[in-house]
Amino acid sequence: MTTRQDCLALDANDPLRKLRDEFELPEGVIYLDGNSLGALPKTTAPRVQNVVQGEWGVGLIRSWNTAGWIDLAQRIGNKIATLVGAGESELIVGDSTSVNLYKVLSAAIALQRADAPARRVIVSERSNFPTDLYIAETLAREHGLRLVLIDADELPAHLNSDLAVLMLTHVNYRTGRMFEMPQVTRDAHAAGALVVWDLAHSAGAVPVDLKGTGPIEEAADFAVGCGYKYLNGGPGAPAFVWAHPRHTARMDREQLRQPLSGWLGHKAPFEFTTDYRPALGIQRFVCGTPALLSMSALECGVDVFLRAETHGGLPALRRKSLALTALFIELVEARCSSHALTLVTPREPAHRGSQASFAHATGGYPVMQALIARGVIGDFRAPDLLRFGFTPLYSTFADAWDAVEHLKAVLDSGEWKEARFNQRAAVT
Amino acid sequence: MTTRQDCLALDANDPLRKLRDEFELPEGVIYLDGNSLGALPKTTAPRVQNVVQGEWGVGLIRSWNTAGWIDLAQRIGNKIATLVGAGESELIVGDSTSVNLYKVLSAAIALQRADAPARRVIVSERSNFPTDLYIAETLAREHGLRLVLIDADELPAHLNSDLAVLMLTHVNYRTGRMFEMPQVTRDAHAAGALVVWDLAHSAGAVPVDLKGTGPIEEAADFAVGCGYKYLNGGPGAPAFVWAHPRHTARMDREQLRQPLSGWLGHKAPFEFTTDYRPALGIQRFVCGTPALLSMSALECGVDVFLRAETHGGLPALRRKSLALTALFIELVEARCSSHALTLVTPREPAHRGSQASFAHATGGYPVMQALIARGVIGDFRAPDLLRFGFTPLYSTFADAWDAVEHLKAVLDSGEWKEARFNQRAAVT
Repeated sequence: MTTRQDCLALDANDPLRKLRDEFELPEGVIYLDGNSLGALPKTTAPRVQNVVQGEWGVGLIRSWNTAGWIDLAQRIGNKIATLVGAGESELIVGDSTSVNLYKVLSAAIALQRADAPARRVIVSERSNFPTDLYIAETLAREHGLRLVLIDADELPAHLNSDLAVLMLTHVNYRTGRMFEMPQVTRDAHAAGALVVWDLAHSAGAVPVDLKGTGPIEEAADFAVGCGYKYLNGGPGAPAFVWAHPRHTARMDREQLRQPLSGWLGHKAPFEFTTDYRPALGIQRFVCGTPALLSMSALECGVDVFLRAETHGGLPALRRKSLALTALFIELVEARCSSHALTLVTPREPAHRGSQASFAHATGGYPVMQALIARGVIGDFRAPDLLRFGFTPLYSTFADAWDAVEHLKAVLDSGEWKEARFNQRAAVT
Repeated sequence: MTTRQDCLALDANDPLRKLRDEFELPEGVIYLDGNSLGALPKTTAPRVQNVVQGEWGVGLIRSWNTAGWIDLAQRIGNKIATLVGAGESELIVGDSTSVNLYKVLSAAIALQRADAPARRVIVSERSNFPTDLYIAETLAREHGLRLVLIDADELPAHLNSDLAVLMLTHVNYRTGRMFEMPQVTRDAHAAGALVVWDLAHSAGAVPVDLKGTGPIEEAADFAVGCGYKYLNGGPGAPAFVWAHPRHTARMDREQLRQPLSGWLGHKAPFEFTTDYRPALGIQRFVCGTPALLSMSALECGVDVFLRAETHGGLPALRRKSLALTALFIELVEARCSSHALTLVTPREPAHRGSQASFAHATGGYPVMQALIARGVIGDFRAPDLLRFGFTPLYSTFADAWDAVEHLKAVLDSGEWKEARFNQRAAVT
């Protein structure tokens, strides 16, 4: 049986342990919700302060040129690209994940309408994050398509000649189950579909290879992702959007557009022409003026990953992440076995993202509230999930051990049944 | 002839002069570009620092509840509502102006499709800000409508039975010419059209009364506006969106949606249901997670206007704004009369926003660059406009005098012809 001493030894031998010093982590908190909102990098507060006081306050409008504001979305995009297997100038930052999904799903639908108008179905996973489903529902309705929601294991039956677009989140936000991206992409392509991947719970958490090194059939078509989870960009940080260069090149040739045709996605925005001519490449997926304070903070989060390269980068982060979640699962199952907790996250490492979720049939919400009151911050996902995210940049093996100790105490003592833990907050 | 001494006297007697102390304004700069990017309020840097270090760094995910992040968009929206004649819970902050235009123009088109499907035309002004035209162009194409661009004086001829939506920017970004909003709205309504107003150059600059105190026919239908111009919200600050409650009530009844159906516009986002049920009221115009650092900065800018209430509020700001632009126009025309400058901003106060623009046939760009090198920051708008924005919260009469003195020197000396002032920057 693993002891706390063992966990401390794992931390002492962790080649990534210095990366935790990159973050401000409050005293008395075990933070296991970096998959909802990443922690604050130490470089962020001074950077944001400089953007506010120096670039905005002193530079004023001149900073579009002198501080490089006009290039910031692409500069950060190029850095994120290195984390998800995308190329230079293929991925760009801006707007929210929801808005970016609207752009890429619209583009995928437009491409299929041109190539295979008989394909009338968008398939997604029933337990996909709701915003993905809501955006797809609206676009399906607008374009006379049908949105079909399935369980993951039903996927093969839906890869057929009706399928226009397969839209999946790589790592499920509830269960942490991870799709085998190259395989699913290849199978969907073989069926004639395009594939849109949501990397909200992948970017910075697991290695992703959008373009792939294998056959072209394994290269994804479109992707979006979130800046404020594993990328540690801050609350509501801008999201990112990627399109395979074969699609942007075609959109260039055929003057195809994504519908959010704002002025900064124009080929020459400062000519102020009356007609919209999309910029080349991924730049056409830009819409309005980006939220520069939030975007600057995002760069600080992304830069931590670039510095992590010297410690082994994403492969090393992935190894640690799997070790953390495996340990946590082992400890919960060993130490809380008398309580009604059911693991819903795959045990198989290849199918697991960077979280561990347990269903608690009767007390999911109050158990998590009791944990949070003790400084163990995970989150609850209705109707019954306790969700624990592990961020290998700053999570420790001792964190895992201590979190389980608190969970055991909350369950053994029955303190979660106290009325105060059942008072629902606005945000759960 | 007005002297600099006269201007100093005007400043000394200005009942709003204390408001300038609310802003950080760099030494040696005369800032006349608050209509492109407003100046930095003194409260913003500490507020943003607190959001970063306290709310994010220490509060982490808990701040959605404990720091009120979940309510921030509506809280700021309610404050902006008081500046534009909107009611409580009718206006909300988020996304960019371009994205919000997409939402409201889509909603207006959907309402007209239900009520008057034979109406197939969207009318806007040829010299409207390009993003408005680009968004309208895409939506017209998607919905099989025709976008007709006109000059402002051609408007009466287009208020006919073909017109579905009239989309105008209240104050023109190039000329500063202001539409008579209640009259135009009433005329468009009489013709059976809906009216979408872009308040980018109005909110915080001129009194706006979206709902109006007169007959219902004068109440606007939809509006959007910008957070980073006269509202001083910081670079790329979130925009705002308003819909008349008669439209949101109808959308509630008939389950109409705007197309960017992201999860935070859902009636119960934390139930994580698979189907989209729009929130009631303006909340349905929310899409994804808002950029909270940028949004927090915006609140500081908006709060300056609430404090300005004790100095006479928007009516007093409007009086000062008109006095500033009138003085500037008078001085330019008197002191630079030998140069090829042509006023394109209306002399008539009722038709003028808070800027003064002059065309310079041969040297618009280098003249502005030479002014900027001297610390007089206006901007250039292709092909030939020198644009000077006056922000009555912090612009002074001495600023106007000194700016003209520099303009005269730049023109008299011919220094604008130096090669360095002709080198185009990325952002003009």
